[in-house]
Amino acid sequence: MAGPEDVTGTLYGLGVGPGDPDLLTVKAARLLRACPVVAYPAPDQGESLARRIAAPHLPGGQVEIAIRMELSPARFPAPEVYDDAASKIAAHLAAGRDVAVLCLGDPLLYGSFMYLFARLAGSHVVEIVPGVASPTAAAAALGLPLAARDDALAVIPAQLPDERIAACLAASDTSAIIKLGRHFARVRALLDTLGLAGSAHYIAHATMADQQILPLATIEPASVPYFSLIIVRRPGAAASAVLR
Amino acid sequence: MAGPEDVTGTLYGLGVGPGDPDLLTVKAARLLRACPVVAYPAPDQGESLARRIAAPHLPGGQVEIAIRMELSPARFPAPEVYDDAASKIAAHLAAGRDVAVLCLGDPLLYGSFMYLFARLAGSHVVEIVPGVASPTAAAAALGLPLAARDDALAVIPAQLPDERIAACLAASDTSAIIKLGRHFARVRALLDTLGLAGSAHYIAHATMADQQILPLATIEPASVPYFSLIIVRRPGAAASAVLR
Repeated sequence: MAGPEDVTGTLYGLGVGPGDPDLLTVKAARLLRACPVVAYPAPDQGESLARRIAAPHLPGGQVEIAIRMELSPARFPAPEVYDDAASKIAAHLAAGRDVAVLCLGDPLLYGSFMYLFARLAGSHVVEIVPGVASPTAAAAALGLPLAARDDALAVIPAQLPDERIAACLAASDTSAIIKLGRHFARVRALLDTLGLAGSAHYIAHATMADQQILPLATIEPASVPYFSLIIVRRPGAAASAVLR
Repeated sequence: MAGPEDVTGTLYGLGVGPGDPDLLTVKAARLLRACPVVAYPAPDQGESLARRIAAPHLPGGQVEIAIRMELSPARFPAPEVYDDAASKIAAHLAAGRDVAVLCLGDPLLYGSFMYLFARLAGSHVVEIVPGVASPTAAAAALGLPLAARDDALAVIPAQLPDERIAACLAASDTSAIIKLGRHFARVRALLDTLGLAGSAHYIAHATMADQQILPLATIEPASVPYFSLIIVRRPGAAASAVLR
C-alpha cells in the first residue's frame, strides 16, 4: 500500500493569458486558489509580469518561486536557470505539494514553461492548462476578424530574418508578427516594401491597462515594447471580406 | 438627458474555448451569469456544441436564440441566417438587454460570430472576449511544445488545396492543420509525400469528454470528425529541441 510519502504533487503549467487578469481560464483561477506553491519567470530585478496578471487570483500564503532571468530580447536564459528552478520545483513535488507555474499567454506557445516541462515531465505528473494567446486577444481589441473559412494564419516572431517573414506572409492570408520590440523598424520597412503596410494593424500590451493601438506610420520605433504585435490581413483573405 | 429608452444593450462575443467548460475565461463566465440573452450557432436539428460547453455557466432563465444552420463542412450558411439572427439580437439590444453570443474557441478565429459582428458593430456597442483556441488546447493535451524562440507557427484549414497546405508547411516550423473531417485522408497522404508523417500528431475533440489521440497511421478516415487537427512539428523547430 502506498503511504503518504509516496503521494507526489502535480506540476501545473498555467496559461495566464495576454494581460487582463479576467482572461485567465476558470480552471487556471481555480488551480491557483488551491496550489500551495507558485512559480513564475521574473526579470533579474523587479516584478514578474505573469505574477502581476495572476495576482488577483492568488489566495495569499502560497510559497513563491521567482525564476529570475535576464529578460533580454537578444539572449535566452542559460540552461542553469531552468535546472535550478526545476530542482526547487521537484523538491516541492516530492514533498506532495502541487506547484503551479505561471505562463504568459499559453504555456506551450513561446513560453518558458516548456523548459521546465522538458526537465520534469519524465519523472512527475504534469498537467498543462492552455491559455488565451496574444494574437487572438489583439484581434479582439482591434475588432479585426483574424481568419475565416479557409484562411491560413501565421504567427511570426519578429526576430526572424526578412526572407523568412516574407515567406510566411506570402503563404498565409492573415499573419501576426509578434515580439516586435527592437525589430519594429525593420518589420515596418519590410511591410512597406511588400505593399502590406496598408493592411497592417499595430497593438502593444493587448488587454493590459496600458494597451496601445496606433497607426503603423506614426509609431516611434524606440517606443515599441517586446509585447507588441502587428496583424497583417491580406485584402484577399476571407476574413477581410466579412465586414464588406 | 438620456432616458431609459436611450440605454441600449451591449453585444458580447464570448469565446467559450475548445471544449472543457472550465476553459472559459473568468470574464466570459462572469458575463454569462449576467447576460439576460444568450445566442449561439446550432445545427438544423439537435444540440449546439457551443451551448453545451457554456451550459455549466448559464444561470438559468436567460432568453436563448439558437442560430440554426445546416452545419455542413461543404457549405457555408446563407447570409439570411445571419441577417435574421442579427435582427433578433438587435431587438434585444434596442430594448436595453445585453446579449452574449457563444463562440467555439475564439470569436474571431474561424467563428461564425464575425458575421454577426459585421452586421451589428457599426450600430451597437460590441465587446469581444477572446477564448482559448484549439491548437494550443491540442498542444496541451498532447504535451507537445508548439513554438519556441523564433519558430513560426501556421494554422492551416484542411480544406485548402494541397499546394497551399504544402506552402504553409514549408514556410513554418510548426503547423496545426485544422478542421480535418473529410479531408483527413488527403492531408495524411500529403504529409507522407512530404516526409512529414513522422512529425505529425493527431487529436480529435481536444479537451472534450471524448478526446481522442491516435497514431496517424492507424486512423480510419471515415471516423475523423470536423473538430480534429494534426500538429506537424519539423525536427528542426526550436520547439522540437526543447525536450532533447
